[in-house]
Amino acid sequence: MTVDLEGLGRRIGGSKGELLDELKELLRMRSVSAREGDEEGFRGCAEWVRAKLEKTGAEARLMETEGHPVVYAEIGGGDRTLLSYGHYDVQPPEPLELWESDPFEPTVRDGSIFARGVADDKGDVMARIQALRIYQEEIGPLPFKLKFFIEGEEEVGSPNLAPFVRANRELLSADACLWEGSMKDEAGRPMVFCGTKGMAYVELRAKGASHDLHSMYGGIAPNPAWRLVQALRTIKDENGEIAVDGFMDLVEPPSEKDLEALGRIPFDDAALRASWGVDRLDRNLTGEAALREYLLKPTANIAGIHSGYAGPGSKTIVPSEAFVKMDFRLVKGQSPGPVVALIRDHLKRRGFDDVEVVDLHGVEAAKTPVDSPIVQTAIEAWEGVGAEAVVYPTVGGSGPTSLIATELGIPTIMTGAVANSGSRIHAPNESARLDDYFEAIEYFAGFFNRFGR
Amino acid sequence: MTVDLEGLGRRIGGSKGELLDELKELLRMRSVSAREGDEEGFRGCAEWVRAKLEKTGAEARLMETEGHPVVYAEIGGGDRTLLSYGHYDVQPPEPLELWESDPFEPTVRDGSIFARGVADDKGDVMARIQALRIYQEEIGPLPFKLKFFIEGEEEVGSPNLAPFVRANRELLSADACLWEGSMKDEAGRPMVFCGTKGMAYVELRAKGASHDLHSMYGGIAPNPAWRLVQALRTIKDENGEIAVDGFMDLVEPPSEKDLEALGRIPFDDAALRASWGVDRLDRNLTGEAALREYLLKPTANIAGIHSGYAGPGSKTIVPSEAFVKMDFRLVKGQSPGPVVALIRDHLKRRGFDDVEVVDLHGVEAAKTPVDSPIVQTAIEAWEGVGAEAVVYPTVGGSGPTSLIATELGIPTIMTGAVANSGSRIHAPNESARLDDYFEAIEYFAGFFNRFGR
Repeated sequence: MTVDLEGLGRRIGGSKGELLDELKELLRMRSVSAREGDEEGFRGCAEWVRAKLEKTGAEARLMETEGHPVVYAEIGGGDRTLLSYGHYDVQPPEPLELWESDPFEPTVRDGSIFARGVADDKGDVMARIQALRIYQEEIGPLPFKLKFFIEGEEEVGSPNLAPFVRANRELLSADACLWEGSMKDEAGRPMVFCGTKGMAYVELRAKGASHDLHSMYGGIAPNPAWRLVQALRTIKDENGEIAVDGFMDLVEPPSEKDLEALGRIPFDDAALRASWGVDRLDRNLTGEAALREYLLKPTANIAGIHSGYAGPGSKTIVPSEAFVKMDFRLVKGQSPGPVVALIRDHLKRRGFDDVEVVDLHGVEAAKTPVDSPIVQTAIEAWEGVGAEAVVYPTVGGSGPTSLIATELGIPTIMTGAVANSGSRIHAPNESARLDDYFEAIEYFAGFFNRFGR
Repeated sequence: MTVDLEGLGRRIGGSKGELLDELKELLRMRSVSAREGDEEGFRGCAEWVRAKLEKTGAEARLMETEGHPVVYAEIGGGDRTLLSYGHYDVQPPEPLELWESDPFEPTVRDGSIFARGVADDKGDVMARIQALRIYQEEIGPLPFKLKFFIEGEEEVGSPNLAPFVRANRELLSADACLWEGSMKDEAGRPMVFCGTKGMAYVELRAKGASHDLHSMYGGIAPNPAWRLVQALRTIKDENGEIAVDGFMDLVEPPSEKDLEALGRIPFDDAALRASWGVDRLDRNLTGEAALREYLLKPTANIAGIHSGYAGPGSKTIVPSEAFVKMDFRLVKGQSPGPVVALIRDHLKRRGFDDVEVVDLHGVEAAKTPVDSPIVQTAIEAWEGVGAEAVVYPTVGGSGPTSLIATELGIPTIMTGAVANSGSRIHAPNESARLDDYFEAIEYFAGFFNRFGR
């Protein structure tokens, strides 16, 4: 089918006011999932999105969960299916006094639109719906099946997502998935993310005497803080390398393609150090070695360690208990359950039977090969709007992506860039550039066109 | 001079009511040094003690400090001088609801007297004054010079003691010093303490980024909690032995006499473990090895370690700062200043230039040889009242004893036992056994008699 992609661009260029007004309407809705009590308003937002989808010709409905409803819609037909994930809920706007304009009254300044949720993720949700509508009006019926899956609890950790996905495996089945939008980097290059790290979050706990003791007993009383330090020294070696028995053995080495993609990622460790106010990165890492560590290797991070006296000056006690909270970011080959078992075995083997390992939270890693067709489609769609995308084999963070990518086995990427590196996601004065917004509509329409070929 | 020691006992036995009434009068005074505002009442207590000393014939006066006044008195003459240290202030009585009788209305129950300060240290102060009076009445003038030095700020850490001692070196000079009273152990044996450990209290601080980071950067961001763990692993080795360069080399080995004394100390590590609710002591120490560690060896104790997230569940951050508070208990040969310098050098030598070592507090160790004449006098004085004393070469704790013992070079011991192991010092229902109180008067009178020979 020959399609007039330039016509798409002209059409969007001629409808900016109307497209923006529709976005603003969504941005005015206070769908703050962290706030309880406005069930009706929340359902109104879900219903508004559902109706917008229905207007495109999709079969659209609200699906109930234990929390806020999911908006689900299907449209089009053919051999191939694309799943689109997004969320209509937003972060709380506080602290309000730091906003230059009302977070729920979208305001345009200097070519950008300011409002809570515009960059995460309402702009992205709206751009995809508008892209679908314009695609159909300008080009014709979708030559593939497109499924929209828009949840209302992403900003509170998607507590009902796993049961929803597991209960609706058939409904959500697809050849590929567009996760919520990505963004543009500092230099304005769109980023395409092909994976997220997994996570095993554990708490190690040690106990000493039944109560804090006078530290005159420091030479003979069991000290749980020292006990944890002794346990931690076996978890990383003196060079800071992870030393949990068998942990690194699980890591599937990155593919040649991953490494090639990594080599193309612009990474400025000096700028990163400056933004953090530090002289050096961990283990004095620099350049590509740092980037590789950041994106492709697992971590053993101490998120918190606490024991004994925390006040000013000197108090002389042997603390009665100690704990350390650790997140292990996992890469392909590592799963949270087996990793926690490795940690337990590792400590037990070294005599730390007394250190309790509490399994607090686990997320699977998600990885879509950088040479998957869906990644190629994303790159070409960016070329279609005159941009060169930077492909990230994985990002350092974790997320529920794995429910789709790993559990359902659907190649999943993050692409589309309403947001940019200065969008202040989750912060006051969240914004998106108008040019990026309109480009995103064109991008998604072009993406649909390429996916359907 | 032949003296009638049995006469002393008879005299005390015949004056119990009067002696007790005098003690009660002192116990009724609310000299709580941690409480501000009652300057007049406080001075009243000091003046009461001064007047009691004057009545014995001593030249007694109040000496001003930046805080509460010191009661100072001198009596007697001859070649030798004994300094007696004590304090007239007490701990706060709270929580009041746990007292079975008014903490400031001394009450006798089951052969014990209950009141705040009776065991620490007013009973001891009063017993020494009464012993002096009775000695003079029954035996005659003191054949040596006795100096009383009774402060009013011991329970708030003696903040003005060091300047007072340093400004009055001549005044306080003596051949030996009786520090405030000791106590009886679980089996009723009087304990004689010949030393206290010193202390170097430091805080190690590490910094990471200028703000907490998302833990997706866990593989490359400097983590100050890990940094401290890496520093701490050099401070103790994997077996829990102190590994600070040069630290153990400073330790002067205990004398043969110290070890002999140690061998005579009854020590029940099973009872200690039971009271702490633990299965084993640090490094699985037991018996005499544990006792030796407790009394004669230095420590490197973690009193507190804190960094990052402390709340429930999982928060994924790389903390921006971390600190650990450590008290190093020191033994003879080790001084706090040089020890802090050793710790700094040790860390610097291993590349931890970024870990700040803050010197919070230092106390010198104090050690009087167990075969000093003053110890022998204490033992014989106990034999004089039919008791066998247990001599401790050192105790695990630290204190200002070193001002007298180390700075002024005066052999200093703690002896006399108004208190016992169940006296609940610093706690509600503080008490002393009446028999122990009257015995203490007889003990001190006998001690004076022996010291004067």
